[in-house]
Amino acid sequence: MNLLTVGSVAFDEIETPFGRSGRIVGGAGLYIALSAAYHTQPVQLVSVVGEDFPADVLEELQRRGIDIAGVQRKAGRKTFYWKGRYHEDLNTRDSLVTELNVLGDFEPYLPDHFRRPDYLMLGNLSPQVQLSVIEQIPQRPRMVALDTMNFWIDNTPNELREVISKIDLLIINDEEARMLGRTPSLVKAAQAIHEMGPEYVIIKKGEHGALLFGDGEVFVAPGLPLEEVFDPTGAGDSFAGGLIGYIARTDDTSFDNLKRAVIVGSVMASFCIEKFGPQRLLELAPEDILRRQEVFKKLSHFDIIYH
Amino acid sequence: MNLLTVGSVAFDEIETPFGRSGRIVGGAGLYIALSAAYHTQPVQLVSVVGEDFPADVLEELQRRGIDIAGVQRKAGRKTFYWKGRYHEDLNTRDSLVTELNVLGDFEPYLPDHFRRPDYLMLGNLSPQVQLSVIEQIPQRPRMVALDTMNFWIDNTPNELREVISKIDLLIINDEEARMLGRTPSLVKAAQAIHEMGPEYVIIKKGEHGALLFGDGEVFVAPGLPLEEVFDPTGAGDSFAGGLIGYIARTDDTSFDNLKRAVIVGSVMASFCIEKFGPQRLLELAPEDILRRQEVFKKLSHFDIIYH
Repeated sequence: MNLLTVGSVAFDEIETPFGRSGRIVGGAGLYIALSAAYHTQPVQLVSVVGEDFPADVLEELQRRGIDIAGVQRKAGRKTFYWKGRYHEDLNTRDSLVTELNVLGDFEPYLPDHFRRPDYLMLGNLSPQVQLSVIEQIPQRPRMVALDTMNFWIDNTPNELREVISKIDLLIINDEEARMLGRTPSLVKAAQAIHEMGPEYVIIKKGEHGALLFGDGEVFVAPGLPLEEVFDPTGAGDSFAGGLIGYIARTDDTSFDNLKRAVIVGSVMASFCIEKFGPQRLLELAPEDILRRQEVFKKLSHFDIIYH
Repeated sequence: MNLLTVGSVAFDEIETPFGRSGRIVGGAGLYIALSAAYHTQPVQLVSVVGEDFPADVLEELQRRGIDIAGVQRKAGRKTFYWKGRYHEDLNTRDSLVTELNVLGDFEPYLPDHFRRPDYLMLGNLSPQVQLSVIEQIPQRPRMVALDTMNFWIDNTPNELREVISKIDLLIINDEEARMLGRTPSLVKAAQAIHEMGPEYVIIKKGEHGALLFGDGEVFVAPGLPLEEVFDPTGAGDSFAGGLIGYIARTDDTSFDNLKRAVIVGSVMASFCIEKFGPQRLLELAPEDILRRQEVFKKLSHFDIIYH
């Protein structure tokens, strides 16, 4: 199945209690594509970089089955740059520097062969950019998934509501779900979001795992209990990439298959946080992924025996 | 199997965003015993009440297979009284009034037939009182479980460490685990607690479920996603009661059986929070409990299918 994704490709500089990454590549689009490409190929990527972005990274994406025909390279301009520092517990962070650069006036353009996706993953970007991608696709994909963040909920609520009305699956974290649904209850927030359009809602809870709502049912995916999180950057995007990659590969949008997809997403996120940036995502073997799925199963399964 | 538990029996007055309970009965010992008695009988209860405590409540406990021979009734004195108000999100609360009354100088006394328990659940009380119960039991039970709280971690750390060194299972919430283990990582906190003595550690995470550590393994029990929590009072004690009641009934302290016991505990807690105080715990049918175990299974189980 064709999977199309749009999202930033960036330079990141990350500080955690464990060290500094220096200038590395990142961005939602890069994490989503890298993660998804372990599950389905090709992954069509729509994004924008500056002249300063290393050609060998783009070549590496191509070698991994990622079609970069939708990645614009702007002559004489600079790539989106973000510098952030995580707090001691790694659950919160401060943005130290955000230079939008080429992302500031990004107009996504889909090459012809990108305009018939079976599955579409809209990474976190302005709702206007996400809408523009949807509008370039004449026939509705089998599933459109979208990630967003508090900035867009606060600053462009109407545009966000418009794009949310056109999607099938919203992927959001717990704090953002409460903001968007205007209630402290995640169950009620999911109901409020269903009413905005999406049939499925996934609420990410960091170390506490994720909730999948849809079809009148709920599924609780466990978080992997870890001694240490090395760097959470990209975890949410790796989750989204693994999830949509698995759905595209299996071509099955049932609730039962989405449960499996949430586990696959959780597995990819659990790898991502083991090293700085996308480093761990670049060195996985398929067996690693299968083995960790078994870990998730062992972690959460039990038999009911009553005597 | 004989199950012995010690814990407060109290008057509570509870305010939540949904209303006021008025003066009702409560206390860790009451919740533990009520919850455990659905799974194993008799449950031997050690506690203390004042002259003001209603005789018909004690009779109701007896009808439910709870042996109250260890519940002292102090003439001319008043029962422990607690009044608290929950905040909007029901995750935090303020204690408005705490009158220790008979609990202030409580010296637990075990009748002869209470001194050979197979299983012992030490509800949240001062470590000195918990130790005094252990010392009245000549032969070590098959499993000793203990609940405690931040107050004892802060104020009687040495006594708490002494009693923790004598137990097999510590049941604690996430904030308390971080305090006791002196680390923000729950996995590291559990390791630190293992080193203090207990073979098993259960960390309760409220709406996010619970973690079971032991035997080099981890199990993640889901939280039941609820639209509304009506009153969280007693949820932790209902959890402990269901857990130890199931272990006593099955007489199996293996990691695999503790996984099931954590689910049974979670089931009992999920009922407790549906109404004020112990009300919901008083009206359960065995089928309700079995049915909700199936809900927990459906909530967290998935198949791994790879294509």
